[in-house]
Amino acid sequence: MKLVRKPDAFRKIMEEERRKGRSLGFVPTMGALHEGHLSLVRAAKKENDRVAVSIFVNPAQFGPKEDLSKYPRPVARDRRLLEKVKADYLFMPSARDMYPEGFQTYVDPGPIAEGLCGKYRPGHFRGVATVVAKLFQAARPHRAYFGIKDLQQCRVVAQLIRDLDFDIRLRVMPIVREPDGLAMSSRNAYLGTRDRERARAVSQALFLARKKFAEGERNLSRLRRAALDILAPQVDRVQYLEFVDAETLEPLRKARLPMAAAVACYVGKTRLIDNVIMGPSK
Amino acid sequence: MKLVRKPDAFRKIMEEERRKGRSLGFVPTMGALHEGHLSLVRAAKKENDRVAVSIFVNPAQFGPKEDLSKYPRPVARDRRLLEKVKADYLFMPSARDMYPEGFQTYVDPGPIAEGLCGKYRPGHFRGVATVVAKLFQAARPHRAYFGIKDLQQCRVVAQLIRDLDFDIRLRVMPIVREPDGLAMSSRNAYLGTRDRERARAVSQALFLARKKFAEGERNLSRLRRAALDILAPQVDRVQYLEFVDAETLEPLRKARLPMAAAVACYVGKTRLIDNVIMGPSK
Repeated sequence: MKLVRKPDAFRKIMEEERRKGRSLGFVPTMGALHEGHLSLVRAAKKENDRVAVSIFVNPAQFGPKEDLSKYPRPVARDRRLLEKVKADYLFMPSARDMYPEGFQTYVDPGPIAEGLCGKYRPGHFRGVATVVAKLFQAARPHRAYFGIKDLQQCRVVAQLIRDLDFDIRLRVMPIVREPDGLAMSSRNAYLGTRDRERARAVSQALFLARKKFAEGERNLSRLRRAALDILAPQVDRVQYLEFVDAETLEPLRKARLPMAAAVACYVGKTRLIDNVIMGPSK
Repeated sequence: MKLVRKPDAFRKIMEEERRKGRSLGFVPTMGALHEGHLSLVRAAKKENDRVAVSIFVNPAQFGPKEDLSKYPRPVARDRRLLEKVKADYLFMPSARDMYPEGFQTYVDPGPIAEGLCGKYRPGHFRGVATVVAKLFQAARPHRAYFGIKDLQQCRVVAQLIRDLDFDIRLRVMPIVREPDGLAMSSRNAYLGTRDRERARAVSQALFLARKKFAEGERNLSRLRRAALDILAPQVDRVQYLEFVDAETLEPLRKARLPMAAAVACYVGKTRLIDNVIMGPSK
C-alpha cells in the first residue's frame, strides 16, 4: 500500500491509474478504522482494479464544542489494517493542505442536511459536503463507498454527486454491528465498560421498532413509544428518535415505505447514532 | 462548430478530446455575445487545441427582482459570431438539465463575495460559483477564460478553483471598451440613445481616478470625490464607487497597490458595472 500525503500527488496517481484504464474505488474515512470501514474497503476491492482509502479528520465538520482534538488517531494500527485488506493507496493529507490559509469556498447542502443530525450539529454537513467534494476532486474515482450508519451523510453525498455533477457511482453499504447489536463506530472507543453495556439499548430500541413495523404496527407514536421505552432508561439523553423517509429524510407523519428509524443519543459524554431501514431502500 | 445541449454529452466530448491529448479552453458566457466575449474566445483559440463556449443564462445568479426573463437571448446571432471566431463546441444546456427537480446543493463563496456587488445582489455569487463549478465539472478544461469587467466574479472563480481543487488555469482578460470608453456588456443593449450617452460617465469617472492616482494623488476621499463629480450628475443612482485591494477586494482606507476602483450604478433601469486596476495586478 502506497502512502500519499499531498493532494496534488494523489490526484496525479489516480489520474494515471485512470488513464491506464483501471477502475477506481475510493473509501473516504476519518481513520480509527473498524470492521465497518474494512467492509467498505473489501467491497471496493471486489468491484475495482484499484482502491484508495483516505484518512482525514476533517476540522470543517466538527463544531466548536465537539470532539475534534480528542478524536482517536491510531495511525499505525489503521495502516496495518489497510495493508491486511489490501488497499492500494492511503491518502492522508494535512489539514493545512486541505484548508490552506484564506480558504473560504464551501459546499452547502440543502434541506437534506437540515433535519436529524443537521439540527443538532449546525455546519456539520456543510463540512462533510465540502471535504467530500474536495476528496472527490482529487480521487475522481469510479465508485465511492460509504456506510449507511451515517444515513444522513450518505444522502447528503448522493445529493452532492447529483447536483454538482460528479461522475461517481455512490455505493452505500450496510451497517456492521458488534455481536450485541451496537453499530460499529470509531466513537465507541470512548465508552467505558458500564456505558458500553448501556449502549446496547440503542440498536435494541431500533430493532424493536423494526420488528413491530414488520408485525403490522403502523402508528408512529406507538412505534416511537415502544422504542423509547427501551432507549430512554439506559441513555443519558435522547437527541432524536425519528421516523423519516429513508431517501429524502423528511419526517413522516404516517408509516410508509421507504422508511428509516434514526436515533441520536448520548451515553455519558459519547454521542451515538444508529438507524434501521424498514423499506426496500438501501 | 458543434452544438451540444446535454451536460452528459458535453462531458463525454470534452473527455474524449482530453484523452486524445488536446488542450482545452473554455469560455462560459450567458450569451448576447459582444466583442468582450469574442476576445475571450480568440485568446482561448491561441492557447488551446480546442475551445468550448457555453451559453447559459443562469437563473441561480439572478435575484427575484432582477432581469432574468428579459435578459437578451439572440441565439442565432450568437452562433454566427462563434462560428466566425472558430469556436469548436457550443454548450447550451437547458435550465432543467442544469437544475433538475430537487436540486439543492450550492457552492458558497466566502468573504470575497460579500462586498461590492455581493452587498447589493444577495445570492448572486452563490449562483455564479455554483454554475461555474457545474460547468467546470462538465468541461474539465485546461484553461478557463473570464473578462475582468466582472472583477468580483473573476476573484470568486479564482477562489473557487483554489478551494475546491479544480485543476484549471484561470485566464483573466482585459475589459473591451466601446470607442467612447463604455465597457462592453450584454446589458448595454438595454440603453436608449440618451442613456447610452450618459453611460459614458461611468468609464470617464474611473479613468479620471486612475489618471489622478498616476499623477500621485493618494488621498482616497479626494480620488472618490473627483470620480463622483463626473459620475453622479449623469447617472440615476450610484450603488457603489469603491477603492479596493485588486486581489482580495477588501475596501482600502489608504491608496496602495494592487488597487482597483470599482463602480456600480443605474442609468435609467439599467445596472452598469465597471472597474479599473491601478496596480500591476490583472
